[in-house]
Amino acid sequence: MAPVRATKAKQDEEATLTEERHIHLSNPHLEKMKEDILYHFDLGTSTHDFPALFGDVKFVCVGGSPWRMKAFAQYITGELKLGDPKADIDNICAGTDRYAMYKVGPVLSISHGMGIPSISIMLHELIKLLYHSKCSDVIVIRIGTSGGIGIEPGSVVITSQSVNPCFKPEFEQIVLGKTVVRSTELDAELAQEFVKCSQEINEFNTLVGNTMCTLDFYEGQGRLDGAICLYTEEEKMQYLKAAYDAGIRNIEMESSVFAAMCNISGLKAAVVCVTILNRLEGDQITSSHDVLAEFQQRPQKLVGYFIKKHLAQTEL
Amino acid sequence: MAPVRATKAKQDEEATLTEERHIHLSNPHLEKMKEDILYHFDLGTSTHDFPALFGDVKFVCVGGSPWRMKAFAQYITGELKLGDPKADIDNICAGTDRYAMYKVGPVLSISHGMGIPSISIMLHELIKLLYHSKCSDVIVIRIGTSGGIGIEPGSVVITSQSVNPCFKPEFEQIVLGKTVVRSTELDAELAQEFVKCSQEINEFNTLVGNTMCTLDFYEGQGRLDGAICLYTEEEKMQYLKAAYDAGIRNIEMESSVFAAMCNISGLKAAVVCVTILNRLEGDQITSSHDVLAEFQQRPQKLVGYFIKKHLAQTEL
Repeated sequence: MAPVRATKAKQDEEATLTEERHIHLSNPHLEKMKEDILYHFDLGTSTHDFPALFGDVKFVCVGGSPWRMKAFAQYITGELKLGDPKADIDNICAGTDRYAMYKVGPVLSISHGMGIPSISIMLHELIKLLYHSKCSDVIVIRIGTSGGIGIEPGSVVITSQSVNPCFKPEFEQIVLGKTVVRSTELDAELAQEFVKCSQEINEFNTLVGNTMCTLDFYEGQGRLDGAICLYTEEEKMQYLKAAYDAGIRNIEMESSVFAAMCNISGLKAAVVCVTILNRLEGDQITSSHDVLAEFQQRPQKLVGYFIKKHLAQTEL
Repeated sequence: MAPVRATKAKQDEEATLTEERHIHLSNPHLEKMKEDILYHFDLGTSTHDFPALFGDVKFVCVGGSPWRMKAFAQYITGELKLGDPKADIDNICAGTDRYAMYKVGPVLSISHGMGIPSISIMLHELIKLLYHSKCSDVIVIRIGTSGGIGIEPGSVVITSQSVNPCFKPEFEQIVLGKTVVRSTELDAELAQEFVKCSQEINEFNTLVGNTMCTLDFYEGQGRLDGAICLYTEEEKMQYLKAAYDAGIRNIEMESSVFAAMCNISGLKAAVVCVTILNRLEGDQITSSHDVLAEFQQRPQKLVGYFIKKHLAQTEL
């Protein structure tokens, strides 16, 4: 019997599936370069053997603070039983102070600083790093803190869509003087997996919602406590309530470009942020250090659980 | 003889001069707050005596990298003969890893990370810090690195106007869902003072020019070496040449919001950036570590000389 030929649709689907598993580099110019220097990581293809260093990476966890991403790497070391979680761990980007990077088995933990431009530089270099390393089936997760809207502080929000300050699920950027608009949709299946993991952990509230991504922490998020504020408390409350009505449950400063760049590069991605205050009740972060520290561990715990579960499934 | 009454014009001028010397806080809400927590500095008005800690500050120097701002503080220690420039120096923001802050006599040296959002958070908290400390006659200077356009690498550019990627001297931000546009003009007299200082030092090329401020390092600056690039080399060159024709001599990622916020707050401000490559000749930063290190010292040297000169004039 002649082999059954896959239909065109089936072939396309398979091609898409295969393509999705590898890093999609949307830049034909890179092929022509003899060497690629990832300047802000202090790494380069002529000086570092990328496939040997990073070829086995399956999970990339990114967050603003270098301290927190080191703590996360140590936490994962313990969770995956790969060593002593209290032991010091080498920073792969020790030659620069722009970002910090740690590797624990198949997990890469990287800091990205604050705001869209800072995370965008990191993501450009990360995507190239994964591509040069010939990585496949990589999941990228942003763990962070955020301001909540109308939900209890300490809740963890898994982003459904990242929306801009006009509540649209778009990331707008200017390229060669022209406006380019990109989608900020995130993987719905992955978001549900995180909700399921949280139910299994059963220690804190986790929900799926829209996340507003802003370019500023004070005026850009309607705070009354910045150095500049030219609106009234009433106008602020009106804005935040309209955000709630648009399905927005938290505000942070990186998710839009994160979603847009992961989408273009064929990377499965999720944004997992804890809320450290309820913006309908105030602007200043007044919780005690201990309470904040415990809140900040929640996304780490959830993502750690998720990674362990995934690895266990792969080993079956 | 009756005292000569100042004319209205003269009175206005004096009022303006007096007002300009103090920090102008454009936020009526702050007066109502019992306590102000500068969250990203890990400082607060209830826990720290701001006038005692910072009341004598006359110069604030800000730059992206925490390492560089520590090195600058140490350099200034030597230049002002306030101690051993090789001695370690305390980080005032040691309780957080968001920013690093050092104080040497009347000079505050603070890191601001990369990009508009990151520097904007720092500036909101800095302006409030200076206000709470009752500082007067403060000059704020951003020292940094940048990509040059059509000028020799290693040249120092003093920003005349910070322009957006459409070459307009404007900073646009979204506040409560509405677009607000602010001016990005910088102090012309101060810029000329820096040029004069450079002539006196006579060690490197310094010029006054427009600076383009972008939200992205790769696509946003027309680079061909990011993870995403959907334009040709020809289109890139066309854009950079048009930028040169618009008087733009360098590109960086913080000057627009820096100029806008200093303007609103009545702070004299300057942007002093060295160019580490000529973008008409390439995108990657390939200079040796030693050459880059020497380039990066140029803004520090220039600003150190400027501060010494200013302090000598004040003492006369």
